[in-house]
Amino acid sequence: MFKLTFLGTSSGIPTRERNVSALAVECSANVYAKRNAWLLIDCGEGTQHQLMRCHLLPNDLSAILITHTHGDHCYGLGGLLASLNMNRRTKPLTLIAPKAIARLLDTLTIVSELHFNYPIDFIAIEDNLECELSLDFGDNHHIAIRFYELSHRILSFGFTIIQTLKKDKLLTDKLRLDDIANGYWHKILKADTPLKLDDTTINPHDYKTHTQSTTKIVIAGDNDTPNLLTHAVKDCHALIHEATYTDEILQKIVNKPAMLGGFNPQHSSAKQVATFAHTCHVPMLILTHFSARYAPFDDKTAKEPNMGHLRDEAERYYDGKLVLAKDFLQVVVNADDN
Amino acid sequence: MFKLTFLGTSSGIPTRERNVSALAVECSANVYAKRNAWLLIDCGEGTQHQLMRCHLLPNDLSAILITHTHGDHCYGLGGLLASLNMNRRTKPLTLIAPKAIARLLDTLTIVSELHFNYPIDFIAIEDNLECELSLDFGDNHHIAIRFYELSHRILSFGFTIIQTLKKDKLLTDKLRLDDIANGYWHKILKADTPLKLDDTTINPHDYKTHTQSTTKIVIAGDNDTPNLLTHAVKDCHALIHEATYTDEILQKIVNKPAMLGGFNPQHSSAKQVATFAHTCHVPMLILTHFSARYAPFDDKTAKEPNMGHLRDEAERYYDGKLVLAKDFLQVVVNADDN
Repeated sequence: MFKLTFLGTSSGIPTRERNVSALAVECSANVYAKRNAWLLIDCGEGTQHQLMRCHLLPNDLSAILITHTHGDHCYGLGGLLASLNMNRRTKPLTLIAPKAIARLLDTLTIVSELHFNYPIDFIAIEDNLECELSLDFGDNHHIAIRFYELSHRILSFGFTIIQTLKKDKLLTDKLRLDDIANGYWHKILKADTPLKLDDTTINPHDYKTHTQSTTKIVIAGDNDTPNLLTHAVKDCHALIHEATYTDEILQKIVNKPAMLGGFNPQHSSAKQVATFAHTCHVPMLILTHFSARYAPFDDKTAKEPNMGHLRDEAERYYDGKLVLAKDFLQVVVNADDN
Repeated sequence: MFKLTFLGTSSGIPTRERNVSALAVECSANVYAKRNAWLLIDCGEGTQHQLMRCHLLPNDLSAILITHTHGDHCYGLGGLLASLNMNRRTKPLTLIAPKAIARLLDTLTIVSELHFNYPIDFIAIEDNLECELSLDFGDNHHIAIRFYELSHRILSFGFTIIQTLKKDKLLTDKLRLDDIANGYWHKILKADTPLKLDDTTINPHDYKTHTQSTTKIVIAGDNDTPNLLTHAVKDCHALIHEATYTDEILQKIVNKPAMLGGFNPQHSSAKQVATFAHTCHVPMLILTHFSARYAPFDDKTAKEPNMGHLRDEAERYYDGKLVLAKDFLQVVVNADDN
C-alpha cells in the first residue's frame, strides 16, 4: 500500500496555495500503521517547510528521488539535507537522481562547508536505466524502482515503484484437525524451519499459505510525451503525471512569436495525459504540477484560468478515477482495493 | 530613511513561526512613498515564499547582499533568481556576496540550464573590503556600502549602509520680498541653472537652501565577536545583529563534551551583543537569528526557552531602544527622527 502526500503541486514558481514540486510516498505494509518509511519524489524549495506542516517524520525518510534538475524540483534539497544533519540524523539516506545532482551537492558541500553526520548513498539514474533498484524495507516488504527517460527541455525521468508484500496466513482448520494447541499458532506463523512442539516436530509450512500482493505506481517528471510511459504503466494502479496547462493555453504558448514570450515549454496538457491514460487503461490518474496561472477554485464556466478548466479537459478524455492534486492532499493506492 | 522588513529570523533551520535569514531594506527618500527600491540582505530557503506574503515587489529589488555562505543565509538565492527570470525581469540586479556564491551560481546555472533574461552584476566582497560601494538611487539619494569581516565558522561579513538624502528648501520670505509669483516656485525648486522669468533672469540657488540628512545602519552576518564592528557602529542609527542564544545556553553548548554534541557554534549571545551596543552608545539594537529552541512567546519566568529569556538578558546589558525581530516585523530607521 502506498500513501501519497502531495507537498508541492505548482509548476515553476510557488503560489500562495501551492508550493513547487515534492511528493511523499509512504510505503506501508499495513493500513493501520501510523508511521511508515517514506520516499520523497522531488524536493523543490520549501519542501522542508511543508514537512513541518504535515504528519511525516524526517527521520522516517529513507530515500529521495529527483526526476530532473530544474530548480522547482530540486532547490530544496540542500536545505533539507542540511536540516537532517542539524537534527542529528545518523541513519543512511539513499539519493537517486540525475548525475548533475551530485555536482550540485558537491558544490553545496564546498560552498557551505557542510559535514554530514549520516551517509548519503548516491545512485545516478543514468547508470541504472536498464536495472531494477531494490530498497530495503524488511523481509516481506519489497520495493523495486525502475527508471524511464522522458522528453523535456532538460534530461527528465519517470519511475515505476513496485511494492510486493508477502503475507503468511495460517490454515486454522488443519491446525485444529491435527490438534495443535492455540498457544503454538503464532510461533508457527513466524517459523521458517521445522519446529519442535512438545514430543513432535512439524514443518510450519504445512500449516500456512503464502499470499503476495503487488501495488505499482508510476510517477513522471516533467514530460511532453506521455507515450514514453506506455510500457511503464502496464498493470499499474496509479499514474502521477504533470498536466501543466490545458491544451488551449499550451497551444497559445507554443504558437506565440518568441519575441512575445512564446516558446515550447515541453510540458503536457491535461488532454494529452488524459488521452494517454485512457488508451492504456490506467485505473487512477493523478494530475499535478499546474501552472501558477490556474487559480485554486474549481469552476469550468469562469473566465479566469482555474482548476475547473483542467479538470473538465481531463474528464473529457479519461473515464477512470481522476484526481487533481493539491498541497497536502493524501491519496492511498492499494492493490487490495481493486 | 530605511524601512526594514524581517523576512526570516530563525537560525539554522526554519520553525513554523520563523523562516531562515532574510531582511529587506527599503531605501526611501520620502516617508509617504508606497513603493521603494529595496535591498535584500541574505536569502535563506523560502525567501521568495515570504515575499509573496508581504508588500514588497520583486521588481523593485535592486541588490542582494549575502553575509556568508551557510545554507540558512543563501539557499533561497537560486529559486529567487530563477523566479525573477520567469516573471520576465529585464532590469539588472546587483549581487554583492562572498566569492563562493559565484561558484554556487555557476553550478546552479549549469545544473538547471538557467538562462537569465536580466544582467546579474556580481561584486565579490573579498575584493571590496577597503572600498565604499555606491548604489545608484538617483541624483539626490545616495546609498554607500562598506564591508567588515566578522568571526564565524565560515567567512562572514557585516555591512554599513549609509543613505544620504539631499533636499532643497525654498526661502519663501525672500521669494515674497522679491515679488516672485507663486506659480514659479516649483520651477525654482527644481532648477539648477539660471532661470528666465518674464523679463528678468534669476539664479535659483539664491532662493533655496540645501539640506542633507544621513541615516546609517549596520547589519551583521553570523559573528561571535561584536567588537569587530566597533568602527562600523560609530554614528549609526541602528545595529542589526544575531543573538542566537542566551549566554547560559551558549555556555552549555560550548562546554558540553563533543561526543554529546558540544561544539563552538561561533555565534553571539544576547548578553555579548547588548554589552557591545551599550558600550558603543548604539541608539537602536535589533536582535535576530534566534535558535529554533526559543519558543515565540515572551515570558522570562517560563522554564521553556523563549523570547522572554533573550529579551530579559539583552535588557540587563543595554539601555537603548531594543527590538527583538520576528518574521514580517517592520522597523523604520530615520536620522530625522533623532
